Amino acid sequence: MKKLFVPALLGAVLFGSAALAAPTELSSGQFGLVYQLFSITIATMGASFIFFVLGKQNLGVKYQPAMLVSALVVAVACYHYFRISGSWSEAYTFVDGVYKASGLPFNDAYRYADWVLTVPLLLVEAVAVLALASNVASGMIGRLVVAALAMIVLGYPGEISLDTGTRLLWGTLSTIPFVYIIYTLFVELGKSLDRQPPRVQLLMKNLRLLLFASWGFYPIAYLMPLVFGSFSADGVVALQVGYSLADMIAKAGFGTLIYFIALEKTKADNEAKPGNLAMAGD
Amino acid sequence: MKKLFVPALLGAVLFGSAALAAPTELSSGQFGLVYQLFSITIATMGASFIFFVLGKQNLGVKYQPAMLVSALVVAVACYHYFRISGSWSEAYTFVDGVYKASGLPFNDAYRYADWVLTVPLLLVEAVAVLALASNVASGMIGRLVVAALAMIVLGYPGEISLDTGTRLLWGTLSTIPFVYIIYTLFVELGKSLDRQPPRVQLLMKNLRLLLFASWGFYPIAYLMPLVFGSFSADGVVALQVGYSLADMIAKAGFGTLIYFIALEKTKADNEAKPGNLAMAGD
Repeated sequence: MKKLFVPALLGAVLFGSAALAAPTELSSGQFGLVYQLFSITIATMGASFIFFVLGKQNLGVKYQPAMLVSALVVAVACYHYFRISGSWSEAYTFVDGVYKASGLPFNDAYRYADWVLTVPLLLVEAVAVLALASNVASGMIGRLVVAALAMIVLGYPGEISLDTGTRLLWGTLSTIPFVYIIYTLFVELGKSLDRQPPRVQLLMKNLRLLLFASWGFYPIAYLMPLVFGSFSADGVVALQVGYSLADMIAKAGFGTLIYFIALEKTKADNEAKPGNLAMAGD
Repeated sequence: MKKLFVPALLGAVLFGSAALAAPTELSSGQFGLVYQLFSITIATMGASFIFFVLGKQNLGVKYQPAMLVSALVVAVACYHYFRISGSWSEAYTFVDGVYKASGLPFNDAYRYADWVLTVPLLLVEAVAVLALASNVASGMIGRLVVAALAMIVLGYPGEISLDTGTRLLWGTLSTIPFVYIIYTLFVELGKSLDRQPPRVQLLMKNLRLLLFASWGFYPIAYLMPLVFGSFSADGVVALQVGYSLADMIAKAGFGTLIYFIALEKTKADNEAKPGNLAMAGD
């Protein structure tokens, strides 16, 4: 966890460099879609936090750290979506049936601040649930966290640029560590599959799919402004909708699936030790 | 929980389509009645959350998930009523003894966002407390959740329309899955009655009544703008009062009754296994 502070500092320096551009006018529907999705994300992250904290007690002690980390991830995301939602409201004024830019910039850097804190925690969570031998796990976590920070920091200069070439260049650079992370998790999750009970295997396969589906959303959302035109209304709406959905799946959905995997593993551990009903191991 | 993301997406697309109309002037009494009822709803949901979290510990472990889900439902509702209440206050300005529309739209889409998240959870809660064989339950939950989402999504186009015919058309379509849900729960709750101890039977009958009474409120509230005239002050006040009462009964009331059913079942389970006082089985 100590490793997070230096990157967080680096990130903060970068985030300070620019306020994001946003379109000068949105229809009531465009503004409302993004606003309502931010609100749903706040509710989803908040409810997930309660679920992870209370549900943790049903799990064997060795699976509880993964749920604790899941709870931290959604708590941090809930906070950031409150801020993002507030900034979205302040950036527009309702005039004559449409939403016009108020002059205050929409601060989308909250998203990158959120990722700097939550993505390393998500990776810790993914590796923790594998319950790998601790020496293997700690080396892998270190490499994944470094790759995650490289991915976020490299993506940001493209995110704040209005220039297609710049967005593509940094987006491509950011994709290199991204592919490394997805590949590592996929392969390692695959390796650990044979060692799992059948029902856990099925859930683990779903976890791999969920990981692929949710992480795959981010590069697609990143490209939306290029598809619809840089900082056009549609481009920004598609970007915000895409990131919000990806965050809900990658954080609340991922944690929920890990909870059910851990619940199955707790049951399997209890069946393996019939004399020990109350505790799921150590 | 994973199932919620697609509906959340669908819902968000719909919510983006319009900000709800509201009457241009309300009397002090009309504004105050709705405002105070929103506040009472926030307090009721918040208090229920505390009750469900703390009361959960008194129940056998197999009944605890139902209380956990109840807690999530009222937490999400509490958040949305905070938002609805804030939007109501912003939509009106107190001028010369009356409340005049401020120009900011009243965002009633929070209600539909809330239902997209909470109604599937309420159905999970209802089925969980039946403690049915898990294969029966999981198939039934799936069908009920699909029906619930159809009901919400079909209701929304009518809710935001000022036209009587449109409101009636979508309201009628939405009633089809609504009747299916009520019928299924009624019949299934009825079937499980014979297998219950006498005191649990009485509570289960009350649960059926409560379910019928609270869910029955929603279509009545939906029709209020037709009774009083579309988006007349009286119509909007009756709609908001009806939905708030229905939400309190269907969420806080339903969860409270489930708590007492689970408490009776925990006692019955403990009596059946006299050697095992601490645990209610699994």
